[in-house]
Amino acid sequence: MSGDPHVEQSGEDRLIAEYFRPLAKHPGAFALMDDAAVITPPAGCDIVLKTDGIIGGVHFFPNDPPDLVGKKALRVNLSDLAAKAARPLGFLLTLALPEEVGDAWLAPFARGLGDDAEFFGCPLLGGDTDRTPGPITISIAMFGAVPHGKMLRRAGAQPGDRVVVTGTIGDAALGVALRRDPRITGRWGLSAEQGNMLQGRYLVPQPRTNVAEIFGRYTSAAMDISDGLAGDLAKLCQASGVAAEVHVARVPLSQAAGAALERDPTLMEAVLTGGDDYEILAAVPPAKLEALRSEAAGRGVAVTEIGMIQAGGGRPRVLDRHGNPLAFARPSFSHF
Amino acid sequence: MSGDPHVEQSGEDRLIAEYFRPLAKHPGAFALMDDAAVITPPAGCDIVLKTDGIIGGVHFFPNDPPDLVGKKALRVNLSDLAAKAARPLGFLLTLALPEEVGDAWLAPFARGLGDDAEFFGCPLLGGDTDRTPGPITISIAMFGAVPHGKMLRRAGAQPGDRVVVTGTIGDAALGVALRRDPRITGRWGLSAEQGNMLQGRYLVPQPRTNVAEIFGRYTSAAMDISDGLAGDLAKLCQASGVAAEVHVARVPLSQAAGAALERDPTLMEAVLTGGDDYEILAAVPPAKLEALRSEAAGRGVAVTEIGMIQAGGGRPRVLDRHGNPLAFARPSFSHF
Repeated sequence: MSGDPHVEQSGEDRLIAEYFRPLAKHPGAFALMDDAAVITPPAGCDIVLKTDGIIGGVHFFPNDPPDLVGKKALRVNLSDLAAKAARPLGFLLTLALPEEVGDAWLAPFARGLGDDAEFFGCPLLGGDTDRTPGPITISIAMFGAVPHGKMLRRAGAQPGDRVVVTGTIGDAALGVALRRDPRITGRWGLSAEQGNMLQGRYLVPQPRTNVAEIFGRYTSAAMDISDGLAGDLAKLCQASGVAAEVHVARVPLSQAAGAALERDPTLMEAVLTGGDDYEILAAVPPAKLEALRSEAAGRGVAVTEIGMIQAGGGRPRVLDRHGNPLAFARPSFSHF
Repeated sequence: MSGDPHVEQSGEDRLIAEYFRPLAKHPGAFALMDDAAVITPPAGCDIVLKTDGIIGGVHFFPNDPPDLVGKKALRVNLSDLAAKAARPLGFLLTLALPEEVGDAWLAPFARGLGDDAEFFGCPLLGGDTDRTPGPITISIAMFGAVPHGKMLRRAGAQPGDRVVVTGTIGDAALGVALRRDPRITGRWGLSAEQGNMLQGRYLVPQPRTNVAEIFGRYTSAAMDISDGLAGDLAKLCQASGVAAEVHVARVPLSQAAGAALERDPTLMEAVLTGGDDYEILAAVPPAKLEALRSEAAGRGVAVTEIGMIQAGGGRPRVLDRHGNPLAFARPSFSHF
């Protein structure tokens, strides 16, 4: 049942010893040789908890490079922690693997996962490995630390706060379309390099871990954008009991996304609702905007103002270049 | 990607609102309406972390009652926490559900899970719900608290310590055979009631949460028995750098298991290696044995001495009634 090493070296033992023990560098992981892990919470800190699973054929393509699948599994959780102003402490991994998945997949998967665990300072603390008759199923539970009472929430946005996002929006939504059909690259008038950039943004999200603490100091509400900017802004507004108005023309786009949109303006809906951005969406009091922007820029992360929080309820309004509100067929991603 | 509620009520929203929000009673769960949960660690405590997944057709039968599947998913993790001397704080749930799983399965699943979360004081803190082309896959990550530095480990057993177990051993291993083929009940000379008891021990483990703190005070090493007594004892010995000698005749058996063994003595191997016991295996200094036994008995949990820790290494010896060591074809359960 557990992924514990057995005294007889089973296949499970060997996989764990070979691929996952090297990732369990935290002393409280006991080199994956106990039933549980232990961490001593940093003094004065709360523990932030998050779980997110990814499934082959659902969240990633079965032929995606396994090292990138490992990175993605970790990064989607790191992204949530960053948007909650928490710094990562470690993670638990539950793996369900079909019979046909062996070393050829696991070795690069564990290498990608391990490289990121090292880079983001987020060690493997424990796990569970099983066989499944279904697809590869990877579930990560991640723990972070935040000063007591300081976890950023979706609730807390105030009328007058500016709506900001990190990085660029919509790249992954366009990238997944290219991943499904690379011929679209030409149809959108993109270079191969631009196409690869967009696909890369889908394959390997960039969690904003290095500005989490800055957002914790300056913003009044935040979340990561995983289900599309339009829908996620609506969730933030709902949790905060406010409305908002954002301007499509201010939404930061990569050069590649901008080029694709120039060729086909109808792609804007995918950009705003497609999801998998893993950027931070936040509300920030106007007096703090400049400090937020400049400190984040100091760490290489652009913060762009796209609109304003308003009093009242109702769906946030996304305004086009003429000031007219856009309507979306499907404002937010859902698996159901 | 996430199990977050959307502003538009999606199928996912409805499932979460209806079945899982009622379980998220901890204030740090934010009623499952934020991206992450937060807990304030109890003062002076470490956080113990455990994850264990169960998969339909692998760890439970697809036609097992859903409320019992919910209980089992939680209890296999509670069992680990108990054996580490930790008290539960809460859990994260990752659910991957095939298309055909709807309210008829989810309603009783969530009820069973919720009843146990309430009973064991272990609230739902957050989760993630997805569709899968594979079988029902349930992954739980659980958090517990233990006084700083006091997590019970597999390592720590000393020569001269007594080897003890809680409850009775082997019931679930026999129960799963009956669950596969109920006609065995008669072949083993068991009453229907005895057969049901054994199946019940497989379906609904009894985590020893209520004696966790007692084991923390008196034992020098502990783990829960999930992969079979023989193999798990070997793991404890290996981690502690010791050997052990236990006596089959002293292994506590239920009346039903005893009756089956009387009819078919070859079942002893299944009893000792079959797994799914979810009892605590521990090493206790002889001077503390009586206090451990009497305090645990005061909470309704029998603690039975089955042997002794010895100096040296090597596989622990399991001795039959004549003092001869038994050999097992497969001393420990592995999925691989």
